[in-house]
Amino acid sequence: MGMPLELNTMIVTKGRETRIEENRFVLEKEGYRLYPIDIPIDVRKTIESDTNGTAVIKKVEWQENRTWLTYQLISLNSTN
Amino acid sequence: MGMPLELNTMIVTKGRETRIEENRFVLEKEGYRLYPIDIPIDVRKTIESDTNGTAVIKKVEWQENRTWLTYQLISLNSTN
Amino acid sequence: MGMPLELNTMIVTKGRETRIEENRFVLEKEGYRLYPIDIPIDVRKTIESDTNGTAVIKKVEWQENRTWLTYQLISLNSTN
Amino acid sequence: MGMPLELNTMIVTKGRETRIEENRFVLEKEGYRLYPIDIPIDVRKTIESDTNGTAVIKKVEWQENRTWLTYQLISLNSTN
Repeated sequence: MGMPLELNTMIVTKGRETRIEENRFVLEKEGYRLYPIDIPIDVRKTIESDTNGTAVIKKVEWQENRTWLTYQLISLNSTN
Repeated sequence: MGMPLELNTMIVTKGRETRIEENRFVLEKEGYRLYPIDIPIDVRKTIESDTNGTAVIKKVEWQENRTWLTYQLISLNSTN
Repeated sequence: MGMPLELNTMIVTKGRETRIEENRFVLEKEGYRLYPIDIPIDVRKTIESDTNGTAVIKKVEWQENRTWLTYQLISLNSTN
Repeated sequence: MGMPLELNTMIVTKGRETRIEENRFVLEKEGYRLYPIDIPIDVRKTIESDTNGTAVIKKVEWQENRTWLTYQLISLNSTN
């Protein structure tokens, strides 16, 4: 009866992000996922990897058991 | 620091819905709102009014402190 | 990485509620579940059954992948 | 009609935490707040301060428009 969702505190790209503008990316994830929006969060390639940088999610879309994130990279780790 | 959101269990239209197809409507709401998606929920014109019918939300979008719902009306109360 | 949770819009007791006071009950559910608190919601014995009545959740506890609800029955369907 | 809640991605103590065991603390916050449970998150004294360490929330309770967190400190920043 309920609606399954997943609370996420960082963006894990798995390298599947698509650049749509200079610093703006879209990422599609399986399932309905709840992310903090308008708040700086970590971006990582995998859960275990070091942070790639910091991003702010600008838009979240939920449809057909998928989540689309549009996020803006606000800082990048130079060590990556 | 946190992200304010509002958990909603029904759709309150205040008469502001826009029909985009036969039984499909779009509704814009203030703030980030969490609704159950893919689950039948009540549709009402106001919080205090009787139910208008039952709908299933098919899409939720969050952006710039607004929420857009796309929902499909699956039954209508004939008394309305 | 994320935290799975389930958004619920009604209380489904499956007959497992424990009465702790006159109109006050505790119910344990599997997993982390998000319910609207301080808002009247339906109480049902099973998902398919008719509503038993209306309750207001007064307390939610999450621990060890379980959810405990404390709710107050505010109206009862006489037909049940 | 809806239930206001706040999505949080870190613990901000404002120095109000109470130690209940060696590495275990309780913290009371205003309002209903959603935190990731069973997942390592940052602990800070204020939003602007550097991280104090990392904790795992073990228990969340919501009641009377307040949230109680029980968390376990799993690492401490020596620079603090």
